Amino acid sequence: MTFSWNQVVAGRASKLAPSAFSDLEGIRSVEDLIFFAGGTPPLEKLPIARLRQASADAWEDAADHLYYGESQGHEPLRHMIAERMTSRGATTDPEHVMITNGSQQGLDLIARTLFDPGDVVVIEGPTYFGAMQAFDAYEVTYRTAPVDDDGLIPDELERLLREHPRPKAIYTVPTFQNPTGVTISPERRRRVVELSLEYTVPIIEDDPYGELHFPGDPVPPLRALDSNVIYLGTFSKTLAPALRMGWMVMPEALIPPLVNSKEAVDIQSDRFVQRAVVRACADGWLDAHLDEARALYQERCQRMIAALQREMPPGTRWITPQGGFFVWVTLTGEITSNALLPTAGKHGVAYLPGSAFYPDRRKEPTLRLGFSTLPDDKIDEGIHRLGRATAEFLG
Amino acid sequence: MTFSWNQVVAGRASKLAPSAFSDLEGIRSVEDLIFFAGGTPPLEKLPIARLRQASADAWEDAADHLYYGESQGHEPLRHMIAERMTSRGATTDPEHVMITNGSQQGLDLIARTLFDPGDVVVIEGPTYFGAMQAFDAYEVTYRTAPVDDDGLIPDELERLLREHPRPKAIYTVPTFQNPTGVTISPERRRRVVELSLEYTVPIIEDDPYGELHFPGDPVPPLRALDSNVIYLGTFSKTLAPALRMGWMVMPEALIPPLVNSKEAVDIQSDRFVQRAVVRACADGWLDAHLDEARALYQERCQRMIAALQREMPPGTRWITPQGGFFVWVTLTGEITSNALLPTAGKHGVAYLPGSAFYPDRRKEPTLRLGFSTLPDDKIDEGIHRLGRATAEFLG
Repeated sequence: MTFSWNQVVAGRASKLAPSAFSDLEGIRSVEDLIFFAGGTPPLEKLPIARLRQASADAWEDAADHLYYGESQGHEPLRHMIAERMTSRGATTDPEHVMITNGSQQGLDLIARTLFDPGDVVVIEGPTYFGAMQAFDAYEVTYRTAPVDDDGLIPDELERLLREHPRPKAIYTVPTFQNPTGVTISPERRRRVVELSLEYTVPIIEDDPYGELHFPGDPVPPLRALDSNVIYLGTFSKTLAPALRMGWMVMPEALIPPLVNSKEAVDIQSDRFVQRAVVRACADGWLDAHLDEARALYQERCQRMIAALQREMPPGTRWITPQGGFFVWVTLTGEITSNALLPTAGKHGVAYLPGSAFYPDRRKEPTLRLGFSTLPDDKIDEGIHRLGRATAEFLG
Repeated sequence: MTFSWNQVVAGRASKLAPSAFSDLEGIRSVEDLIFFAGGTPPLEKLPIARLRQASADAWEDAADHLYYGESQGHEPLRHMIAERMTSRGATTDPEHVMITNGSQQGLDLIARTLFDPGDVVVIEGPTYFGAMQAFDAYEVTYRTAPVDDDGLIPDELERLLREHPRPKAIYTVPTFQNPTGVTISPERRRRVVELSLEYTVPIIEDDPYGELHFPGDPVPPLRALDSNVIYLGTFSKTLAPALRMGWMVMPEALIPPLVNSKEAVDIQSDRFVQRAVVRACADGWLDAHLDEARALYQERCQRMIAALQREMPPGTRWITPQGGFFVWVTLTGEITSNALLPTAGKHGVAYLPGSAFYPDRRKEPTLRLGFSTLPDDKIDEGIHRLGRATAEFLG
């Protein structure tokens, strides 16, 4: 006897979909594939020895932390994060920091605290697909605010905030955005925060790449402008994704529901990894590690831009980022990146099509290229393949 | 300028409450307190050396698993769990197993997949408060099915299943229940599963203690009777709570929404801990560890029962469990365990009052005593204090 599970599941069950990476299932098995679709640090630069030692050290006093505890997170880690946030211009104390399993869990906890079914959420168009994956479970609908080379456009945002029903939140990746790489300009940042306050629509600032600016002036978080901004950070891009270690900086009023939600969903984050991260980052090590990473990512980005100039058909456009992991390319001609993808796969190169980053999965000539994971020769060869695939497809 | 956050938060925000342990905040600072409120393995029996070595070994091939991956969980761990489930009578293959951050996360993911606002969930009265904490975010209401010494009472359950609206799920801890310690009898188990199928109301089987039966015959999970049962297991009680390592055995139809939900909420569980658990448990080590634990818990339980007989006023009742961590006590006279708690604290002993385990927090003469964490002399002294406190309170 089997159940009629479709009578039993929640209304939201149909929205519990896999991430956009599932679109690439067919192509990932291509031999010798050059995969520009990832958004991670390069495998060969992961600080394995440092993290392994820090993990071993964290196990040395294991008995004290093999129990339940610390739903909000290990105090020394929250303290370190607060100091780093403060040094980036966003004055923070440890009481406003909560440790999460990557910023992905932060997105879920915020959605749980803010969103009722049918609420409208303003997102950037395009935006990080994982945020939509997290928010979808709360049965929200989206309004898309366009971005240009200076990031989110305040007038377009204001137009959306004036609509009825009023949006419940503004979700933005303001710095080295995923997927476009753009950064909201300083004047626009001030205006975006003003609009948030004027319309009482909170900002969710997702900032995985903010510390990965290219060598030179860092960009302060939006949170530096207003303590009502809900800030999400992560060690996934600065240390390693599998640590599942991120944080939230919470407005005062949201601390109880957010911390209670964390306790309700998994009681606490990994207590050993929290201690290992504190140890690994100590004595200036993280800053030195980041300096090295920034220089490498800038080199790889420049290499990719040069290859695009060399290999892509005239009329192809792209945005040159000042940090982060991604170059956003707009193909020439009447083609969509979705239509091109099988030809690209045949030539041995993969990317994420722009459609992955819109709630309506609209087909566009845009695509996201990640430059962080691959060495120079692979970047050159991969973009060469992309150029050939595009030329072949255009005929 | 500050936000009117109460205009912004979701309707469910008021339900995002802390766990019942917050009721004990005042008492936990009492000097030399004997704390019977916990539900964990004893600190001195945590297999620290074994886990530390397993963790170090898991870091040896770290580069392969410092990236994103495995939302459903590490295949060898799922394989090990499937084998163990099968050997306990619940035939399972690894494809139906998903790794979660403790069974607490499993509760959240199941609620997300099954519950719409206003849905009715049948729970045992009393039941594990953390399940209500997880389910509350989905704005369900509860109907309470009473338990007696043979566990959930099928006729009472059927009465609830016949009501309108029909309940959406039956949540049960069928084996060495939290908080009462009772186990549903074999005949009742068959009837409960029949009722689930007859009324198309799925069973959520939460089984943290099933492997902690006292030496002798183990109790097969409810899942052994029907593959529509959603099963939750955990290593929190058999290895250590802070590992945050649990699992779900999923009905076929629920695999996609549950795995997609896991990806949406935190992408994956800790990949190192998953590997460490496989290594730690290998070569029969877990079974030997469990045998030792079972004998110890039986001794401590017997010690507590003997102390209750010696120390508590006539008319006090308790249920003698066959496994798990808890003895459920019903005080004599007209007193509630809530009213007694400050006097108990004054005498240096703490427990969780029965009210913690009901959605309406009804005040009862019941209380939960955990026997797993404390050595014999502390059990004797703690129950002596409880007896004195009760006598004093009764006058």
